[in-house]
Amino acid sequence: MGVVVAFEDKSAAGGSIDAIVALTKADMARVNATILSRTGSEVAMIPEVANHLISSGGKRLRPMLTLATAQLANHRGDGHIKLAASVEFMHTATLLHDDVVDESDMRRGKPAARMVWGNEASVLVGDFLLGQAFKMMVEVGSLRALDILSSAATVIAEGEVAQLAAAKNTATTEDEYLAVIRGKTAELFAAACEVGPVLADRPREEQASCRSFGMNLGIAFQLVDDALDYGGSDVKLGKNIGDDFREGKITLPVVLAFRRGGEAERAFWRRTLEEGEIQEGDLEQAVGLMRRHRALEDTIERARHYGAMAKDALALFPDGPMKRALVDVVEFCVNRTH
Amino acid sequence: MGVVVAFEDKSAAGGSIDAIVALTKADMARVNATILSRTGSEVAMIPEVANHLISSGGKRLRPMLTLATAQLANHRGDGHIKLAASVEFMHTATLLHDDVVDESDMRRGKPAARMVWGNEASVLVGDFLLGQAFKMMVEVGSLRALDILSSAATVIAEGEVAQLAAAKNTATTEDEYLAVIRGKTAELFAAACEVGPVLADRPREEQASCRSFGMNLGIAFQLVDDALDYGGSDVKLGKNIGDDFREGKITLPVVLAFRRGGEAERAFWRRTLEEGEIQEGDLEQAVGLMRRHRALEDTIERARHYGAMAKDALALFPDGPMKRALVDVVEFCVNRTH
Repeated sequence: MGVVVAFEDKSAAGGSIDAIVALTKADMARVNATILSRTGSEVAMIPEVANHLISSGGKRLRPMLTLATAQLANHRGDGHIKLAASVEFMHTATLLHDDVVDESDMRRGKPAARMVWGNEASVLVGDFLLGQAFKMMVEVGSLRALDILSSAATVIAEGEVAQLAAAKNTATTEDEYLAVIRGKTAELFAAACEVGPVLADRPREEQASCRSFGMNLGIAFQLVDDALDYGGSDVKLGKNIGDDFREGKITLPVVLAFRRGGEAERAFWRRTLEEGEIQEGDLEQAVGLMRRHRALEDTIERARHYGAMAKDALALFPDGPMKRALVDVVEFCVNRTH
Repeated sequence: MGVVVAFEDKSAAGGSIDAIVALTKADMARVNATILSRTGSEVAMIPEVANHLISSGGKRLRPMLTLATAQLANHRGDGHIKLAASVEFMHTATLLHDDVVDESDMRRGKPAARMVWGNEASVLVGDFLLGQAFKMMVEVGSLRALDILSSAATVIAEGEVAQLAAAKNTATTEDEYLAVIRGKTAELFAAACEVGPVLADRPREEQASCRSFGMNLGIAFQLVDDALDYGGSDVKLGKNIGDDFREGKITLPVVLAFRRGGEAERAFWRRTLEEGEIQEGDLEQAVGLMRRHRALEDTIERARHYGAMAKDALALFPDGPMKRALVDVVEFCVNRTH
């Protein structure tokens, strides 16, 4: 699911990614070089399509988490570089395939790859990147890390299919919604964080802690993203809102507003999201209903809950700059306003 | 690329797969059980889509080759079962994605999955199967086998993208065409055959021999397939011919007929395949031109060449039932008439 963290937003209410960016800077340069060399192919279309997306301004939060948790675990080898690049390739492959699935026109403010090179290229270059991701993992040689990341690949695909099956069902429960975002978003965050201490051969409880940190951070991240798609909790209607509404996506703000509304409101949600009959003013109406029922505020509140779990998951680790940087990431993700 | 071996065809001019089927029967039952259990998911759409294709009568030549080469190499463990299932999942994922790429309506005589569940499900269930394939490989735990199969995944995707880039170019050379089919078809045959002796920890030369056997068998297989799509060398126009022509695919029969023809004929190929302007009678015209230039016969002749290489690749192995069965498979693939 295409999510670009607004890294420019240093005035967020709390939290920042400055510290994690600074602490992973040297490693990240190596990851970027690896990404560049591993999208190379004699088939010219492959680097063209891959770099269109990879160089389009996503800030690589997921691979950064792999680097950060590897540092947190005092990893001394090189394997985390390739694993971080693998994580980014898995993410990029998912974005390419999602664009085809969602029939998206735009991605990160640029035309989606499928609009430039066609659905065919998006599907196949996604497959290529997945293959390269696995090749890099194999080169690292940790069977545990391979197990974690290959399991993540199936769970992500399962989450996407579950989302497809749940599509346009306004009666989706919060639990069903959570199961979808655990799969499609949070699992990759969890895997990205787990492989750091796994590579460093740290005790199982530290591996589980990092996994839990990533999982809950990922859930919080997606919840905030879903709220922001309706303008967030302070409800300023910006220009980038309403994509989920137009696509009929059932996200938590909808789940809450639908359940808390009366029959007339539910008819509105069914018409717009299930039947896709969207008229002038419907988006404003939707935001109004969400505001009435505090659906956006409570979506952010739910995100805070998962953010708190993420922070507690790190409690086993001694205090230090990287631990503080990771806590800052949680604050940043929960408090971001765009 | 969707190719169903016509296993019913026991009257083929030479060769048969009866021996390999008999010799791998017990293992194949375990592979089938693994395939069935590994398409399971709580997300109901996944087994539905996967089994639509998996149970639709492909005869699983690729996993059978993994089982056969493992036996040839006297492998004593269990790993070949999961690797064979992985190979079939990789193949099935490719078919699901190809249907989306080619906008195919039919596959193995049934509506393509994308026609029943949509492009979205075909893309995502393909991703799920790829993920499961990697998970099973990881469970087997052989880093060499993982390396071979994950490399194959990227090479296959590269071959598909190369085919896309070469699409509708009637001036494609035979070498360019060969590079495409090595990637999109032969690489998986090669990997499927290589992992058998790799698991059995046989010397490198035996691994390389099996790889070479699979690679050349795969090339021969695809060449015959491409000839059969125009009715094969005995040119009886059946009902299943002309798919490649209608899709504007540049296969070896076209490459040869285009190069051997005069300017008027080249104009015909450009109009029909590059511009996609196909009129009544054009397919018959295409077959007529191929016949005039012996393009189909020579495509089969080329297949015989690669078939001969495949057989010689096995020469290092002592004579025995499995070696003879594998030679029979080559004969069968080269001589099949539908």
